[in-house]
Amino acid sequence: MKIGLDIMGGDYAPRATVLGAVEASKILSDNQTLVLIGNKELALPILEEAGADSSLFEFVHTTETIGMGEHPTKAITQKPQASISLGFQLLKEGALDSFSSAGNTGAMLVGSMFSVKTVPGVIRPAIATNVPKLKNGFGVLLDVGANADCKPDILLQFGMLGSLYAQHVYGAENPSVALLNIGEEEEKGNMLTIATHSLMKETAAFNFIGNIEGRDLFEDHIDVIVCDGFTGNVVLKLAESFYALTLRKGFKDDFFDRFNYEQYGGSPILGVNAPVIIGHGISNPEAIKNMVLLSRNMIESKFIDKVKAAFK
Amino acid sequence: MKIGLDIMGGDYAPRATVLGAVEASKILSDNQTLVLIGNKELALPILEEAGADSSLFEFVHTTETIGMGEHPTKAITQKPQASISLGFQLLKEGALDSFSSAGNTGAMLVGSMFSVKTVPGVIRPAIATNVPKLKNGFGVLLDVGANADCKPDILLQFGMLGSLYAQHVYGAENPSVALLNIGEEEEKGNMLTIATHSLMKETAAFNFIGNIEGRDLFEDHIDVIVCDGFTGNVVLKLAESFYALTLRKGFKDDFFDRFNYEQYGGSPILGVNAPVIIGHGISNPEAIKNMVLLSRNMIESKFIDKVKAAFK
Repeated sequence: MKIGLDIMGGDYAPRATVLGAVEASKILSDNQTLVLIGNKELALPILEEAGADSSLFEFVHTTETIGMGEHPTKAITQKPQASISLGFQLLKEGALDSFSSAGNTGAMLVGSMFSVKTVPGVIRPAIATNVPKLKNGFGVLLDVGANADCKPDILLQFGMLGSLYAQHVYGAENPSVALLNIGEEEEKGNMLTIATHSLMKETAAFNFIGNIEGRDLFEDHIDVIVCDGFTGNVVLKLAESFYALTLRKGFKDDFFDRFNYEQYGGSPILGVNAPVIIGHGISNPEAIKNMVLLSRNMIESKFIDKVKAAFK
Repeated sequence: MKIGLDIMGGDYAPRATVLGAVEASKILSDNQTLVLIGNKELALPILEEAGADSSLFEFVHTTETIGMGEHPTKAITQKPQASISLGFQLLKEGALDSFSSAGNTGAMLVGSMFSVKTVPGVIRPAIATNVPKLKNGFGVLLDVGANADCKPDILLQFGMLGSLYAQHVYGAENPSVALLNIGEEEEKGNMLTIATHSLMKETAAFNFIGNIEGRDLFEDHIDVIVCDGFTGNVVLKLAESFYALTLRKGFKDDFFDRFNYEQYGGSPILGVNAPVIIGHGISNPEAIKNMVLLSRNMIESKFIDKVKAAFK
């Protein structure tokens, strides 16, 4: 198993990424190899400083990078030697089993769709994220930004993708899937959610439990929450800001702690032909470590095969 | 000045509404009269118990009510003697200067549009709510549920309505108006927000400061936040649930305390020809009191005249 990691991605790269890789390597099995993509000359001193054996890693050396502010499509097409571009090239060739980066989100999305491409039958891939449940564990919220405008059939598919992810990667049995809406009754909502509710109500593809409202996001019985990428992105950023406020004000609590992105490492792109994970721009070594472990879990669970089979 | 209050609206009516009216009456001037609409026979013993002089109030007696679960349009048309219906009838006739209720939100919205009607030039009225600013005071968020599907010209008008409200009722000077979006750059967003940004950028009707993201909702420099009613409702309910969680967990903080709806009493419907305020279903006497005082402020500020002038 080859787990690809862009060591140049994120605000604290390559230091945070390389140190995160070191931590992850302590947990990975012998047949699970981390492939570090980026500037090897910058990585080696960091490995040495951490007392890590550089022979445990494979390297794909490059000095080119895609910056956080660059236009995704332009960057991916005009910088084939950038770490993100190389990662996707290797992923497409099968030299990697997964690829993750805490770098340019748009480039990760575009890169995945250009290289490994969307699973046949999937209209649009979605970015999924974790939402903490009140008691313990996490629900899955999608889409959180890949698709600002959605149609009902796209949201229906997000339900399928989220359900498969919750089941195979998180081990939820018969995951419950809810539609984020502005009323519990099926006739409530905007044109998109009313039409989506009708589709979801009839589907046999997942366990639809109906509409939920903004206040129900953290309920323990909900495994997957479906919304368009505009709503999901607003919700995600609002939740992050609340978490940041509780931290700043010194509130300490198990539930709020589980908003910490470090704990789950990154947001997978669901619906493309390989495990691809986007890390938070401010990822620290702990977050990178967990992004690598999530990559491994996605590979081990054969999540991609499950998606392909479901959309066949 | 005649301030109309539905004493039958809300989960704790008529007790909470009548006690709230008593508290408000202690603050109102002699020429500011509270008109209590609902079952007078139920109200009198509550007034007596509170040691209040019933002659300070005017009464419009009725035993009919509209329940929380009733279909708004049906209820308003089929129950002309219900407290909400009577309130709007009196408001339309000019016998009241404002009307508020913590009862059926939909009936309040439909009632206002059927009776006093939308201000000429306003495409769709919006429900506005308070969002606490980090340091102190409140921003205004609209729409939070009146219009699940919006078009760019409707959102542009929400900017005007919110700006007028922040200026005249909250005393904000040259209020800053932001568009809730999923990126700060003007090309970011969904089709609705991208088109709306173009309109807002060109408007002279208010002080547009650009896009904000979900994480910026509480920033001190933002007076008005515009979004469609779907997004606003999800945001509002998510924020309420966070506040409820901080309470449940015993966190105590000035900022979080300002999420407490009791402090501002209710959500005005902006864009109709009279001050109309919808209270929270769980309103207690403190919330009712503040809803009455907000009604008075809307009347005193001649907010409706400002709206009419702006849309002429």
